[in-house]
Amino acid sequence: MLKKISEYNVDEEMDIVVLLKHADVRTTKTGKQYLALTFEDTSGQIRGNFWDASSTDVDNYQSGTVVELSGKKELYQNTPQVKIYGLRLVGEEEGFDMSQFVKAAPISVEDMQAELNKDVFEITNPTWNRIVRFLLQKYQINFYSYPAAKTNHHAIKGGLAFHTLSMVRLAQSISALYPQLNKPLLLAGTILHDLGKTIELTGPVGTEYTVTGNLIGHIVLIDEEIIKAATELKIDEQSEDFLVLRHMVLSHHGLQEYGSPVRPALMEADVLHEIDMLDASLYMMTEALDKTTPGQYTDRIFALDNRRFYKPKLSE
Amino acid sequence: MLKKISEYNVDEEMDIVVLLKHADVRTTKTGKQYLALTFEDTSGQIRGNFWDASSTDVDNYQSGTVVELSGKKELYQNTPQVKIYGLRLVGEEEGFDMSQFVKAAPISVEDMQAELNKDVFEITNPTWNRIVRFLLQKYQINFYSYPAAKTNHHAIKGGLAFHTLSMVRLAQSISALYPQLNKPLLLAGTILHDLGKTIELTGPVGTEYTVTGNLIGHIVLIDEEIIKAATELKIDEQSEDFLVLRHMVLSHHGLQEYGSPVRPALMEADVLHEIDMLDASLYMMTEALDKTTPGQYTDRIFALDNRRFYKPKLSE
Amino acid sequence: MLKKISEYNVDEEMDIVVLLKHADVRTTKTGKQYLALTFEDTSGQIRGNFWDASSTDVDNYQSGTVVELSGKKELYQNTPQVKIYGLRLVGEEEGFDMSQFVKAAPISVEDMQAELNKDVFEITNPTWNRIVRFLLQKYQINFYSYPAAKTNHHAIKGGLAFHTLSMVRLAQSISALYPQLNKPLLLAGTILHDLGKTIELTGPVGTEYTVTGNLIGHIVLIDEEIIKAATELKIDEQSEDFLVLRHMVLSHHGLQEYGSPVRPALMEADVLHEIDMLDASLYMMTEALDKTTPGQYTDRIFALDNRRFYKPKLSE
Amino acid sequence: MLKKISEYNVDEEMDIVVLLKHADVRTTKTGKQYLALTFEDTSGQIRGNFWDASSTDVDNYQSGTVVELSGKKELYQNTPQVKIYGLRLVGEEEGFDMSQFVKAAPISVEDMQAELNKDVFEITNPTWNRIVRFLLQKYQINFYSYPAAKTNHHAIKGGLAFHTLSMVRLAQSISALYPQLNKPLLLAGTILHDLGKTIELTGPVGTEYTVTGNLIGHIVLIDEEIIKAATELKIDEQSEDFLVLRHMVLSHHGLQEYGSPVRPALMEADVLHEIDMLDASLYMMTEALDKTTPGQYTDRIFALDNRRFYKPKLSE
Amino acid sequence: MLKKISEYNVDEEMDIVVLLKHADVRTTKTGKQYLALTFEDTSGQIRGNFWDASSTDVDNYQSGTVVELSGKKELYQNTPQVKIYGLRLVGEEEGFDMSQFVKAAPISVEDMQAELNKDVFEITNPTWNRIVRFLLQKYQINFYSYPAAKTNHHAIKGGLAFHTLSMVRLAQSISALYPQLNKPLLLAGTILHDLGKTIELTGPVGTEYTVTGNLIGHIVLIDEEIIKAATELKIDEQSEDFLVLRHMVLSHHGLQEYGSPVRPALMEADVLHEIDMLDASLYMMTEALDKTTPGQYTDRIFALDNRRFYKPKLSE
Amino acid sequence: MLKKISEYNVDEEMDIVVLLKHADVRTTKTGKQYLALTFEDTSGQIRGNFWDASSTDVDNYQSGTVVELSGKKELYQNTPQVKIYGLRLVGEEEGFDMSQFVKAAPISVEDMQAELNKDVFEITNPTWNRIVRFLLQKYQINFYSYPAAKTNHHAIKGGLAFHTLSMVRLAQSISALYPQLNKPLLLAGTILHDLGKTIELTGPVGTEYTVTGNLIGHIVLIDEEIIKAATELKIDEQSEDFLVLRHMVLSHHGLQEYGSPVRPALMEADVLHEIDMLDASLYMMTEALDKTTPGQYTDRIFALDNRRFYKPKLSE
Repeated sequence: MLKKISEYNVDEEMDIVVLLKHADVRTTKTGKQYLALTFEDTSGQIRGNFWDASSTDVDNYQSGTVVELSGKKELYQNTPQVKIYGLRLVGEEEGFDMSQFVKAAPISVEDMQAELNKDVFEITNPTWNRIVRFLLQKYQINFYSYPAAKTNHHAIKGGLAFHTLSMVRLAQSISALYPQLNKPLLLAGTILHDLGKTIELTGPVGTEYTVTGNLIGHIVLIDEEIIKAATELKIDEQSEDFLVLRHMVLSHHGLQEYGSPVRPALMEADVLHEIDMLDASLYMMTEALDKTTPGQYTDRIFALDNRRFYKPKLSE
Repeated sequence: MLKKISEYNVDEEMDIVVLLKHADVRTTKTGKQYLALTFEDTSGQIRGNFWDASSTDVDNYQSGTVVELSGKKELYQNTPQVKIYGLRLVGEEEGFDMSQFVKAAPISVEDMQAELNKDVFEITNPTWNRIVRFLLQKYQINFYSYPAAKTNHHAIKGGLAFHTLSMVRLAQSISALYPQLNKPLLLAGTILHDLGKTIELTGPVGTEYTVTGNLIGHIVLIDEEIIKAATELKIDEQSEDFLVLRHMVLSHHGLQEYGSPVRPALMEADVLHEIDMLDASLYMMTEALDKTTPGQYTDRIFALDNRRFYKPKLSE
Repeated sequence: MLKKISEYNVDEEMDIVVLLKHADVRTTKTGKQYLALTFEDTSGQIRGNFWDASSTDVDNYQSGTVVELSGKKELYQNTPQVKIYGLRLVGEEEGFDMSQFVKAAPISVEDMQAELNKDVFEITNPTWNRIVRFLLQKYQINFYSYPAAKTNHHAIKGGLAFHTLSMVRLAQSISALYPQLNKPLLLAGTILHDLGKTIELTGPVGTEYTVTGNLIGHIVLIDEEIIKAATELKIDEQSEDFLVLRHMVLSHHGLQEYGSPVRPALMEADVLHEIDMLDASLYMMTEALDKTTPGQYTDRIFALDNRRFYKPKLSE
Repeated sequence: MLKKISEYNVDEEMDIVVLLKHADVRTTKTGKQYLALTFEDTSGQIRGNFWDASSTDVDNYQSGTVVELSGKKELYQNTPQVKIYGLRLVGEEEGFDMSQFVKAAPISVEDMQAELNKDVFEITNPTWNRIVRFLLQKYQINFYSYPAAKTNHHAIKGGLAFHTLSMVRLAQSISALYPQLNKPLLLAGTILHDLGKTIELTGPVGTEYTVTGNLIGHIVLIDEEIIKAATELKIDEQSEDFLVLRHMVLSHHGLQEYGSPVRPALMEADVLHEIDMLDASLYMMTEALDKTTPGQYTDRIFALDNRRFYKPKLSE
Repeated sequence: MLKKISEYNVDEEMDIVVLLKHADVRTTKTGKQYLALTFEDTSGQIRGNFWDASSTDVDNYQSGTVVELSGKKELYQNTPQVKIYGLRLVGEEEGFDMSQFVKAAPISVEDMQAELNKDVFEITNPTWNRIVRFLLQKYQINFYSYPAAKTNHHAIKGGLAFHTLSMVRLAQSISALYPQLNKPLLLAGTILHDLGKTIELTGPVGTEYTVTGNLIGHIVLIDEEIIKAATELKIDEQSEDFLVLRHMVLSHHGLQEYGSPVRPALMEADVLHEIDMLDASLYMMTEALDKTTPGQYTDRIFALDNRRFYKPKLSE
Repeated sequence: MLKKISEYNVDEEMDIVVLLKHADVRTTKTGKQYLALTFEDTSGQIRGNFWDASSTDVDNYQSGTVVELSGKKELYQNTPQVKIYGLRLVGEEEGFDMSQFVKAAPISVEDMQAELNKDVFEITNPTWNRIVRFLLQKYQINFYSYPAAKTNHHAIKGGLAFHTLSMVRLAQSISALYPQLNKPLLLAGTILHDLGKTIELTGPVGTEYTVTGNLIGHIVLIDEEIIKAATELKIDEQSEDFLVLRHMVLSHHGLQEYGSPVRPALMEADVLHEIDMLDASLYMMTEALDKTTPGQYTDRIFALDNRRFYKPKLSE
């Protein structure tokens, strides 16, 4: 039971405790009911069909439960699949931890928190500093556990904080190279820019959009939080300091087509948008190349204009 | 002095009190200073140059002042212009009313207010009703005096309320024809949709964008006002009733390219966008056709894809 | 046999007379022939496979025939499907009426006709009035039975007249609010705008595009009919009255990308395009929302930019 | 008086009879009236100002009159201009021929007519042959005198027939290389495709769009003529032969964005569109390169995506 | 064994030697391994499944091998498929020629070579003549055997030379009609324009993109070859003659969106792009129409904006 | 004579030696010849008219000469202009250095060279290292003196090397944060990516595009140089190391619309494109903001989608 899903070879028998990520009830052409299942742990996912499912099976094996799976890994249309021998519900009393099954950011929450706290220290403008502290405090649990997206980039546990931290590091480097940038403003905008995703998305497991997320969107949601923080902290909402911070988060998608109600009109806002793109694209390319053999191409990456990337063999 | 700018004929001498809308200081090729001026009253505008301007003249004749203008109406490159004989500052003590000089909506503020109040009465949902009442109350002065835009449509005094009222009438008619629409929601969204323009723009005279308008935009500004109203009125901000009202105003530009952070995802939000387009385009076409002789074309209208419209002679 | 397709529950046995909308002959992987069938009545459609079909079955059960179906309603991949026990051809001598099986407009032909006749009375310009009367007379059968489209909006029996009537009602309301509009012109253009669909499409059952429809298109086809009407009625084809009516129908798709050879260049032509969009989108949203549970989203609607719409639960 | 406009050198005195193409009345900054004039003959155009124009001058020197111009050719901002010494109206009794002043196609009307008649002979399908003959007959005067456009390509006297003839030659060559093409259909479509321009435009001198041209467009206008020809000639309007000919002209702009109500759906229709583009672009590039020195670039050509073309010096 | 794939009727037994174009190993739902195969000869392709494949079968029947296939032609979802009775590897010692299985250009290599040589003779400019001769010599084998594309147009053996030859014929015809064109330049550019495909693609059988093809692209690859030819032939690389030849091939895709690093800036470069489009589209339409019954439409052609084309019945 | 152009105040008298950047001969309406001149030094530019220019003046005062200018700084339409009292040609014998007049990069050539040499040291792959050294050596003079563009960003003396160096610094920082990047490849691609501009442009003074630049473009020109370097250095041109370096420079514009014949298909190529955009946009924003008063907007920046940027006043 110590092996992970991706560590089994084709034709190897599996016995493993995993998360049941999706469960669909279906019927064969000859009228029999079965379950089309997707299993997940931190190493990846695998699909399999559970034939001749009884009504009890349908009730038991629902999305989000943890199961012991025994079966055999096989290839179906070039994709690994598990031929299921048996399934068993694993109760919480058996002592598993949900984090065993969900891929997480490569840095611990504590380390991310410690590093970001040092960055906040460099936000010398009191308006920005107080708002950033207030909101990091208010959303600290979700900020460090939520993914940064449902499917595209950083769709992992803690992905939101990890993406933010990577961007903060870029912001630090670029501010050092271009002293004309207002570093405190760039840091504040970077830390806050995606925090609205803690309201837009449902959470780290089985991530979906909330109704609020669909009807309002994370850009307006974080702007709303900034306003409420200012009210709470008695910050002057007409001050330019306050307006430019709001502008940073409102414009960070760069183009109105991508959901920003205003285009970047501050140098720091433009840079925020560019480092957001840079970190997101590096994450997606890296993840796709990790699964690719040298001398081959990745699958097409939808969010990068459907491009495929080549993984060189390189002499070096 | 009772005649309006547009009532003078070419070659007729003018003596008239008008608003000095724009004043630019320029220098002739031979190095002499002059003022390039634009005068306005409710009937339209006319341009003219004030030659050999002294420093005192430059100080006196600034944008936004009221002047007595004497001169002669002439044609310059097919456009009427005034050859200036003399200018004189008119002080407030001489008793003019700025509304003499600024084109205004064709309905009185009182009538618009009375009609809208009846519409508010039909917003039976208490969440929407209370927020609408609260914000109409809070912005009542500016709502009835601001234009709906800097240059495109309803760029007149009271244009914002007049545009809103015209749309409310459309909303009433369409709700009567399509009972599947939630009329209270459509009315509430319509009344509030452009109210953020009272913050985005500077006012009815010499209208410009405020810094807040440029950096935040009127769509997010009205959403902010709705949130603050809810806080004040202790309305549940997680209720669906509240979310859908916010969605109405956030999505009313229809496309993200036009500045809405989310696209319409409610039937009523889609209709709100369509009646906004319908009223705005009717206003612009009407205004252009009013200046056009039957059998001729209007000038190109930039906001309508640069189209020209034909004014038929028609037998009837 | 009085129940409709959509009124059966999953797992309920069905015995029902329906239209066989589509019939495809297929072969199983093991080489046996079967029929993949789609059944329809006014309440909706359901699919089912008829296994081990003989050559006689293939000959009998063709698209467009009426059959008695016995079977059981089941779920296949979350979509209802019928497990077929037996099929029987129903002959015309058994006395069914095709209209039992085809979804129709919610207003009777007589009522639509009566209302439109009153509208025609308001077309006071004799050129437009005579052409409208002539063409409504010429195409009266098909105008009141054809759908307005093959798949998108108003794809129902009588959908063409119903869509036209809904738009005429909008035209009446909007003309009342904006007296600058030439109501007779707007009414005439609205009534005629889609009449070419009676030539572009094959009819109310199993609607397809005709070759003429594909090669010429309904916009040019109705323009052709207007020209022929004018010739017949000895109307002056050079008169402006005649040209503007042609322009109304030629430009009603609004953009050349959507098949109009000219863009709207009359205020009434622009309004015609806008009310066409408004009625079509309201129809599609309403139809999709009718199938949706409160608190859920509709399927994506291709013709509305692939958007999904939310059906609120609303407190009220 | 035998020299043409473009044959004068800068600083040379001119005495020449020319067409007064445009005449605008303007006023100097110091209030004096003058005429801004454009003169034209078959060699090109030149502009000049007629200072201190009296009311009689304004009445005399109107667009479309013929004048004797004396003056001196000068450079103004790198563009030749004429400094006017004197102007004199030339009456028809002095015996000029308007064709002296308007640039014309490089082939005579008789030669074009003779060649096209041979091409018509190859249209062996009787439906197409009779319609082509009928319409060439009906519009023979205008077809051989009208330009093919107001400003872009072949904007010269006889340009419509010349453009058509050049395309017919391409159609002949391409049909010889690709025998799968239906040559009679391609020839018929090519000859008719732009004939509607005789109704869309006002004529060879001072070409403008007619109201009919603006509201209907030349594509629908020629389709209308084809229908009327068929009625006159008692041709079956439901026959496929007739439909495909209409499709040829309706789709010849290739894309709906360019005003075709339907996209090409016949191989010959697609080829017609391609040879239309080929001949038009060759004309525009040739005309621009003719005015350009080897080793230099042409001006930007708006209708060719605003590109500039290089004229090589080439060793050969 | 003399019959071709497309010559068998449905339900007819087949015994035929064919190319195994694609072979995928798959598993049935019940866990058994089978091969999903595509067979090809010069007449077309057919698919079939080889059930219960052993490991030896999987090893033997790989893409690119030649096999003897016995089975029966059947219809599966309206598409012909072969029910496989048996398969046998055919060794090279049995004396087949790969060209039996691959569709080839309709003109022999010798005829194409002879005709192109005559064209080269007309390239009178020594720079262009020597480079064209040098590269045709260097790539003569591949130029006459490679396809012009992986899937779109001229994706047949010898398709590259055949496409080039068809374009050269167009270039000859068009140069005759438009003497302002520099024919030697147009011929040289046409002959070389796609030669880089011999490096971009893997060859005539099982055509794929090479890594070089993907990373560099055929446009830059042929430009590179031209530079190397010039070095070899000691041609002045700064001469305008040399630059314009490079520009011809670099710009031949017409738009930068289509991969040309520069847009056509020579009249001949623009014409080269247009005849490339013309020949490619004629090839694709002809191929699609050849498979279509008169009175029907072709399938949608992706590379022609997903259009379908109608094949007329025509009276003639 | 030690003051710079931008250091004079309005209404101050000037006596200064400057570069005559542009000189146009024009004629007044009353027929007199004058020179419209633009003067430049390292602090900026100023325009002025030299009235009543004699033929000698026209011959003397040509673009690119150095002149002593005496006059007075004035405002014309809100833009500073010089009223010219006198002009005098300054000969080379008077000992000026052209670099006095041309704005240059803020780092000295020696410092840039020293820093880049250290970066080259980190390119450990011998293929890339040798090519980079070879080309930096070959183009060392021009690389350190040319601008990076004609008008957009880094259009200053040494701008090419300065832009490259700024990007190398970004490449170093980002490689440190994302160790999955191949730093040697990223450095090599960054250093070479714009080197073709030394062939595409004419040089640091009066920069224009060369004919080669227009017909071939700097992307293909640097690729050509890399190939020639490889030939010279006997590097294997088929090796993957060589191909990926070429791909880096060929794809660096990111989109084919912007002139790259291939889109980035390597992670490092994508990053190269992103840091190119980042450095270019930071340069343009900084330059525009430097000319802007706090609390105001910059002019529209064409190359940044015509956006204006706000310069905050900020409390800090």
